[in-house]
Amino acid sequence: MGDLNTALYMKFENERTRAASNLLAQVPDINPRIVYDLGCGPGNSTQLLRRRFPSASVIGLDSSNNMLQVARSRVTGAQFLKEDIEFWLPPKDVDLLFANASLHFVRDHYKLMVRLVSCLNEGGCIAVQMPNNMQEDSHALMRMIAADGPWADRLVPIAKTRAIIGPSDEYYRLLAPICSKLDIWQTTYIHPIDTPDRIVEWFEGAELHAFLEPLYPEERGEFLARYRAALSESYAPQPDGKFLLRYPRLFFVAQK
Amino acid sequence: MGDLNTALYMKFENERTRAASNLLAQVPDINPRIVYDLGCGPGNSTQLLRRRFPSASVIGLDSSNNMLQVARSRVTGAQFLKEDIEFWLPPKDVDLLFANASLHFVRDHYKLMVRLVSCLNEGGCIAVQMPNNMQEDSHALMRMIAADGPWADRLVPIAKTRAIIGPSDEYYRLLAPICSKLDIWQTTYIHPIDTPDRIVEWFEGAELHAFLEPLYPEERGEFLARYRAALSESYAPQPDGKFLLRYPRLFFVAQK
Repeated sequence: MGDLNTALYMKFENERTRAASNLLAQVPDINPRIVYDLGCGPGNSTQLLRRRFPSASVIGLDSSNNMLQVARSRVTGAQFLKEDIEFWLPPKDVDLLFANASLHFVRDHYKLMVRLVSCLNEGGCIAVQMPNNMQEDSHALMRMIAADGPWADRLVPIAKTRAIIGPSDEYYRLLAPICSKLDIWQTTYIHPIDTPDRIVEWFEGAELHAFLEPLYPEERGEFLARYRAALSESYAPQPDGKFLLRYPRLFFVAQK
Repeated sequence: MGDLNTALYMKFENERTRAASNLLAQVPDINPRIVYDLGCGPGNSTQLLRRRFPSASVIGLDSSNNMLQVARSRVTGAQFLKEDIEFWLPPKDVDLLFANASLHFVRDHYKLMVRLVSCLNEGGCIAVQMPNNMQEDSHALMRMIAADGPWADRLVPIAKTRAIIGPSDEYYRLLAPICSKLDIWQTTYIHPIDTPDRIVEWFEGAELHAFLEPLYPEERGEFLARYRAALSESYAPQPDGKFLLRYPRLFFVAQK
């Protein structure tokens, strides 16, 4: 995925950080020496890790130069490295791997998770949160428009590379045999937003980006216009004029 | 509802306290003077409130003498009063009303919530968690067995008094007009359990109790045998022999 627009991403930083904070709250007190923040983005999750584990070495990894630049300017006391987490191999003595909204960007996140667990210390943890909104209108409409336009040849293959988040028992069967403790839950946040356009902005800082990137500028305008129209039909306003965006996220914390 | 068996209830206390703890984490730092714990049970949630707000007066309310007795013996520094929250009217100057897994036992929890909000101080909060598992097999099977046996005449009316938890946007429309801030989410916990019998034990300390209470002892045995058999058919074991119990819970924190 190309470099994300950090300003767009950070527009919804409170909502994104909420998930990171809920994830971190379930990480046990393992007193880690080394913590990696996989797909650290602009450093919001790394900041939380620094605060929770002040005596640990906290290292944020991201493939985006823009994100790393923002992260370095905001978080003191942490290290930031450019890495593609899909191919990154953690050093042997890792205590905590934290991945807030990043593993779902990897082609085979099942395989990756098993590899990551294999690098954990005995008693070490991996904590993961993945957006699980592919069935929500916000994302189903995105895919429908990708498949139904002059851009279909370019966008359908992209739609097909998106990770499918399995049902929670699949992750149980994957991780229970290789972990001593495993905690799985899914939270659906209900975000009141001002207009359906805010949904566009939200996902321009994330999934929508991959669909817009291969388009010519005029196609981008057309794609976004169609997406906006479809969202307006799908999301009905509440009596106070707000729109409710359902945002399901799958979480798990596994201890080796 | 008759007096609950505290030992059964407390068997799954970690799981129940997890929800209370997740709820409390979203309550803002309002520095409350008076906190009520509505339906405090054996005091596990009251304990959390005492720790979070050490300088507040924390008062636990419950209609069960058994629960109150346990709560008093475990939680120091809190007051415990016997009250039926359905008819309880809070005093005027309340800062925090906390209701972990209790409002769904009230016949019209919508009406009750509006009344409770009306008693909050400006800036005061109400924090609510309600089990939302009526559509899960664990509960659908309970109702099916209640409706299909020699006890149907007695149990069907009970099944009909159970609160229906609405979709989250209903609570938004109810509370958004009378609150300044409103946060709604639903979490589905995935609990690995050893045998389907543990599901029976779990809900004997809660919803199942209401169905068993009007039965003769020999009917109870028959009801439980049918319920166990139905659960065993419905919940398939994982490769490690465990069973995964999905437990959805609806949360909201509203600030006036």
